[in-house]
Amino acid sequence: MVNQQFAFALHILAMLACSGGTVDSRTVAASVNTNPVVIRRLLLALRRAGLVETSAGKRGGARLKKKPADVTLLDIYNAIELRPAIAINERHPFKKCRVSCCMQPIMEKISEGAEEAMRSHLRRTTLREVMRRIK
Amino acid sequence: MVNQQFAFALHILAMLACSGGTVDSRTVAASVNTNPVVIRRLLLALRRAGLVETSAGKRGGARLKKKPADVTLLDIYNAIELRPAIAINERHPFKKCRVSCCMQPIMEKISEGAEEAMRSHLRRTTLREVMRRIK
Repeated sequence: MVNQQFAFALHILAMLACSGGTVDSRTVAASVNTNPVVIRRLLLALRRAGLVETSAGKRGGARLKKKPADVTLLDIYNAIELRPAIAINERHPFKKCRVSCCMQPIMEKISEGAEEAMRSHLRRTTLREVMRRIK
Repeated sequence: MVNQQFAFALHILAMLACSGGTVDSRTVAASVNTNPVVIRRLLLALRRAGLVETSAGKRGGARLKKKPADVTLLDIYNAIELRPAIAINERHPFKKCRVSCCMQPIMEKISEGAEEAMRSHLRRTTLREVMRRIK
């Protein structure tokens, strides 16, 4: 479940980008096929990241704060703060074992490298390009 | 928890590589600081992938089946079959919404691209190089 958040967040932003205006969280939730509460939580994260503006009230909802060409997939990925794809073992090392004592910094470097490779990839696509694939 | 499996698997293989022989799952479990059952489950996956050999009995345990220089981090990643770092939304699309109807293939492409970027990175490092970082 946790890592569907990126798919949900991109879906939200694609809807806002395609509508060009304000969309309420119920309409977004119906499109994503999830609970409006999940959508509102994600909208808060996207607002914190400066990607959307939200307004309350009868005609309230969310709208995109930036041009779609200025929003990369990496901006969205950063906004929702996923856990790294490859986690390190955070347990205490077994002091009597030299492998155990060395693994944590080795794994940190591997995890960071893998994450950076993925981030570089996500940086190359914008929300504008995603919009173009929506017919 | 789930994505610590890679860290555990690499730790196991680093131990076997450094020992140069057979190591029992209790010794490995003490080094990883986890339950021997977790280690045995991972050893099965690593055996299935052709990376280790296991033997039963009093002097049983696991040993590396390949040269460390011939095992890449990607081989290990593939062996444990993690879920993709970026998941797609697998719920049914909302037919009345064109964004909803287009998101699944768009997300699949993004997820695959991000995964491939990470895989390409993991392919570049071998178990031999990990061993060199263990003093």
